[in-house]
Amino acid sequence: MDTSATHLLKDELDIVIPTIRNLDFLEMWRPFFEPYHLIIVQDGDPSRTIKVPDGFDYELYNRNDINKILGPKASCISFKDSACRCFGYMVSKKKYIFTIDDDCFVAKDPSGKEINALSQHIKNLLCPSTPNFFNTLYDPFREGADFVRGYPFSLREGVPTAVSHGLWMNIPDYDAPTQLVKPLERNKRYVDAVLTIPKGTLFPMCGMNLAFDRDLIGPAMYFGLMGDGQPIGRYDDMWAGWCVKVICDHLGLGVKTGLPYIWHSKASNPFVNLKKEYHGIFWQEEIIPFFQAATLSKDSTTVQKCHVELSKQVKEKLGKIDPYFVKLADAMVTWIEAWDELNPATDSGKK
Amino acid sequence: MDTSATHLLKDELDIVIPTIRNLDFLEMWRPFFEPYHLIIVQDGDPSRTIKVPDGFDYELYNRNDINKILGPKASCISFKDSACRCFGYMVSKKKYIFTIDDDCFVAKDPSGKEINALSQHIKNLLCPSTPNFFNTLYDPFREGADFVRGYPFSLREGVPTAVSHGLWMNIPDYDAPTQLVKPLERNKRYVDAVLTIPKGTLFPMCGMNLAFDRDLIGPAMYFGLMGDGQPIGRYDDMWAGWCVKVICDHLGLGVKTGLPYIWHSKASNPFVNLKKEYHGIFWQEEIIPFFQAATLSKDSTTVQKCHVELSKQVKEKLGKIDPYFVKLADAMVTWIEAWDELNPATDSGKK
Repeated sequence: MDTSATHLLKDELDIVIPTIRNLDFLEMWRPFFEPYHLIIVQDGDPSRTIKVPDGFDYELYNRNDINKILGPKASCISFKDSACRCFGYMVSKKKYIFTIDDDCFVAKDPSGKEINALSQHIKNLLCPSTPNFFNTLYDPFREGADFVRGYPFSLREGVPTAVSHGLWMNIPDYDAPTQLVKPLERNKRYVDAVLTIPKGTLFPMCGMNLAFDRDLIGPAMYFGLMGDGQPIGRYDDMWAGWCVKVICDHLGLGVKTGLPYIWHSKASNPFVNLKKEYHGIFWQEEIIPFFQAATLSKDSTTVQKCHVELSKQVKEKLGKIDPYFVKLADAMVTWIEAWDELNPATDSGKK
Repeated sequence: MDTSATHLLKDELDIVIPTIRNLDFLEMWRPFFEPYHLIIVQDGDPSRTIKVPDGFDYELYNRNDINKILGPKASCISFKDSACRCFGYMVSKKKYIFTIDDDCFVAKDPSGKEINALSQHIKNLLCPSTPNFFNTLYDPFREGADFVRGYPFSLREGVPTAVSHGLWMNIPDYDAPTQLVKPLERNKRYVDAVLTIPKGTLFPMCGMNLAFDRDLIGPAMYFGLMGDGQPIGRYDDMWAGWCVKVICDHLGLGVKTGLPYIWHSKASNPFVNLKKEYHGIFWQEEIIPFFQAATLSKDSTTVQKCHVELSKQVKEKLGKIDPYFVKLADAMVTWIEAWDELNPATDSGKK
């Protein structure tokens, strides 16, 4: 078991877990997660008690806590959807966040060794990304790899990595139609690669196994309005991913995908998922071209300013599809206001 | 040994090999290559005899043959540089080309099984590419994979694949400075992935282990002016790759990279390489931004028209760097003229 990097960034990283149940899954992660602080965001009925295994250092927020802390601004945090996890990003005071679903377990690499997902995420975040030119041997900063012939030397410094997107063995992250068509498909292919998503290219960001640099990109990690009272679900991480990628491209930040793998234990119900995704399946056909064409102005020099500018474009251009996007655009602004309230600008002037 | 797909496209694919020596390396490839037709482009002294192992079906062209066939237009084919291989693409009459260097051997996958590189290239070329949106589980058309949640359904048909770029175990394709700094680095990481290079992203295309659809992209596979009498070498495949990618993006064609691996046996001399690459290392800093910004007009509806339009931009914008690029731009036009002479348009009107 590789716990070599377990204590890396111990005081600089929070693990955010959205949940509606007892966190027994943490037992398997104990050697990897125990040194870290957990932020648990309890979804659903706040009167229910969530059991956390002994020995973990954590804080837990239920809906009452969120309402109390944010007041009217709590309206931007989703209820009865794992989108509520982004509240945890907001209350954290650490530089890095790792977020994981409670049905995700430790995966094994092809040699049978347990994968320390957190350690790999930290490696990904601590070395640069290369969004401006593709490297055919994947991440040039990994041991045993480098930039290949023809890679411009001026681009080899790379850019700071803001996001590390990890993958899943066993149950792949499919939408409801694909789940229905391929109920038995399992991801058995361990691809030993980390790579930078090129500048100008969007990707489907999954929130199941995700790490990011909160200082660099935190305020863009807004998981939208999903679940209770909303016409849509299961697009929380997608929405965040589209916003994040556009903003990273604008600010010269990098997004990596690939390793680490986690073991995704259980497919969610495809019929329930279809109901949640239904509108999104139509809407994404217009949302993707919108984000592909989106550009931000030179005045948007911070993540907050970028997110607010993007919200205006969402209102103007996606508002035509459905009134939901007007509400979502307003929630994006509320989110930034709440973020700034909880994270007042310091002398370093991050804001 | 996987020879299952060996006969696939037997009458539709040529293998192009540039060489200055006896082709003993073919012995190792016999089970895979023997059913196919080889086009051998002999570089250097034409009076030298190249031995080809018995049993292979081949045609061989030396410099005298090239001069005889192309006349004055032979000036666009490089001499004393593996760039001469593109003559083989031009004289082929097949739909697909696989080109490989004569110091490349059969690699083994992690289970120890010999890799049928040709079969994997054919698989890559026969299924679509997905350049318009990134799929985090890599090639969605591979067995056991699919499009992930959030991938727009309208983009799942993909686009025709024009290029399959394979990789190398053992000696990685490094430039001279990297070779000098890391003389002992070997590529030992088998990454079990094929992926589409996103639209708008350039990549360093290596000619060592490369396949393409000649009908779709052939006339853009021009390996430039390198070697004898030129100020530069070892940028032949890079040059072709930049042109090809811009043209593929314009015409809605896909480029894949990743599997298959070959075993690259021998590092070339880094001191000799440095001399060849010297100018390119400077020039690529201006060439890359040029290609990144290049756009083609709506009138350029065929590969030939695209390549000629690109040649004009090369002359105008890169001609300022060095007179070499004026010569290269002219050679790009000559290449297209020669291509069309040897490949007259058919009723299907590919031209």
